[in-house]
Amino acid sequence: MQPIAFIVSDGTGITAETFAHSILSQFDLKFRLIRVPFVDSADKAYTTLNDINHAAELGGSRPIVFTTLVNSESNEIVKRSNALVLDMFQTFIEPLEQELRVKSSHAMGRGHQAADTEAYKNRIEAINFSLTHDDGQSHLNLKEADVILVGVSRSGKTPTTLYLAMQYGLKAANYPLIPEDFERGKLPTPLLTHKSKIFGLSIDPHRLAEIRNERRPGSKYASLENCRYEVNEAQALMRRENIKWLSSTHKSIEEIAATILQEIRLDKPSY
Amino acid sequence: MQPIAFIVSDGTGITAETFAHSILSQFDLKFRLIRVPFVDSADKAYTTLNDINHAAELGGSRPIVFTTLVNSESNEIVKRSNALVLDMFQTFIEPLEQELRVKSSHAMGRGHQAADTEAYKNRIEAINFSLTHDDGQSHLNLKEADVILVGVSRSGKTPTTLYLAMQYGLKAANYPLIPEDFERGKLPTPLLTHKSKIFGLSIDPHRLAEIRNERRPGSKYASLENCRYEVNEAQALMRRENIKWLSSTHKSIEEIAATILQEIRLDKPSY
Repeated sequence: MQPIAFIVSDGTGITAETFAHSILSQFDLKFRLIRVPFVDSADKAYTTLNDINHAAELGGSRPIVFTTLVNSESNEIVKRSNALVLDMFQTFIEPLEQELRVKSSHAMGRGHQAADTEAYKNRIEAINFSLTHDDGQSHLNLKEADVILVGVSRSGKTPTTLYLAMQYGLKAANYPLIPEDFERGKLPTPLLTHKSKIFGLSIDPHRLAEIRNERRPGSKYASLENCRYEVNEAQALMRRENIKWLSSTHKSIEEIAATILQEIRLDKPSY
Repeated sequence: MQPIAFIVSDGTGITAETFAHSILSQFDLKFRLIRVPFVDSADKAYTTLNDINHAAELGGSRPIVFTTLVNSESNEIVKRSNALVLDMFQTFIEPLEQELRVKSSHAMGRGHQAADTEAYKNRIEAINFSLTHDDGQSHLNLKEADVILVGVSRSGKTPTTLYLAMQYGLKAANYPLIPEDFERGKLPTPLLTHKSKIFGLSIDPHRLAEIRNERRPGSKYASLENCRYEVNEAQALMRRENIKWLSSTHKSIEEIAATILQEIRLDKPSY
C-alpha cells in the first residue's frame, strides 16, 4: 500500500510541499502527497483531522502529516490525528523564541508570498520586466535591469530570467548571442554600457543540438556542426569580454539562478 | 545589532531560504539572511563553520543557522558552530526512518529542483508552452493545456500561468476577455471546446484602473468607468458559461495558483 503524506498549511502550503517532497525523496518509496491548503479555522482543522483519520483507517499504515500551522489551536487539533505528525513550524519557533528572547507573532501569511506588500509588487514588476526584455526584445530601460543573461539560442536564458524575477524579484533581461555578433566579434551594441550586469550561459553542443532538433528537426540551426560553431564562438566572445559564465547543461533553473546570485553578489542583504 | 541567519544547504538552498524566511517573519526583528548554497564537501563545511563563527564574534548575539545538509559529515561540522543550529533535515528524517522502518538514502539533490529528470523536463516544457500560449497568442495545441485562464487584461493571468508552469509543470494557457467577446456574449471561439479546463480571474475595478493607469496613464482603457464595464461583463459572461473564477485583487500568484489547483483538482496524485 502506498504511504500517504499530508501537507497541512494555513497558507498555500507550497513551500511546505516543496520541502516535504525533498525530505520524502530521501526514501525509496512512492508517497501519495495530499496538500491541504488554507486551513485557517478550527472548523477546517477538524475536517482535516477527519480526512487524515479516514486515510489512516483505509491505508495499511499511519499517514505522515507535515504541518505548518501558525495558529496553535488548529495545530493542536490536527496533532490529535492518528498519524506521524511532523510540525515544521512549532519545532523551530520554540527554540527561536528562547534564543531571541521574544515571542513570535503567530500571524498567518507573513511570508514573501503575501500580496499587498512592497516585495510582492516588486516581484510582479520584475516578472513583467523580464517578459518584455526576453530574447533581446527591448533595449529600453536596460539600466534598470539587475542582471542581463547572454548566450546562444536555447541555452536556458528565458526560464532562468523568469525564475530570477519570480523567486527573487530581480529584473532580469536576456539577450541572444547570434552569428552576427560572432562575425563582428562583439557583444550586441545595447549591452556594451551594461557589462557589469552581464552573465553568460553556455551549453554542451550535443545537448543544444538535441534541444534545437525538437523545435526545428533537421534544420541547419539544429545541426551539431552549427551548434558547435555557435557555442565555441559564444564562449570565445565571453572570454574576450571577461564575462562570467556557467554551463547550463546539467543544471536546473534553480541551480543556475543560485550560482548567478553567488557570482554577481545580487543577494538581497536583508528581509 | 541586526541578528544574522545563515541558511546552509548542499543544494541551492532556495526552498530552505523561503521556509526560513516564513519562520523568521514571525518575529518583529529584521534579520540579515545569508544563504550559503552548494556546501557539498567537508572543506566547504569547514569554510562555512568559520564564516558562522566569525559572524558570531562580530555580532552581539549568536547567529541562527538553518541547515538542510543531507551529508552527515558536513552536517556535524556545521553543527559545531557557535550558533543556534536548526537542522531542517535530520529533525524530520529520523522520525520518518523510525515510522517507515527504512533508512533514507542520504543522497543530495533529489528534490524536484534536480535537472536531468523527467519531472524537470516537463517543467521546462510547461514554461515554454505557457509563454507561447500567453495572452491568446496561439490557439495551437490547446488540447494539451492543463488549464486555461481567462479574464480581462491585467487581471493577473500571465504571472499566474508562468507560476503554474514553473512550480507544478502544468501547461497553462491564458486568454484575455475583451470587449468583442462581451458584445458577442460568448467566450473566444477557440476556447469553446475546452470549457472544462477554463478558470477565470476577476479583479476589483478600482485596483484594475490603478494597474492599467501605470501602463497607459489617462487612457480610456485605464479609466474606472471602462474597468467597471469590462469587469462586470466578464463576470456576467463567466457566470453564464458556468466558469469558476476568483478575485485576484488581494491574492498573490501563489495563493491564486493554490486555489486553482484545489478547484479544478489538478493536484498531481503522487511523486
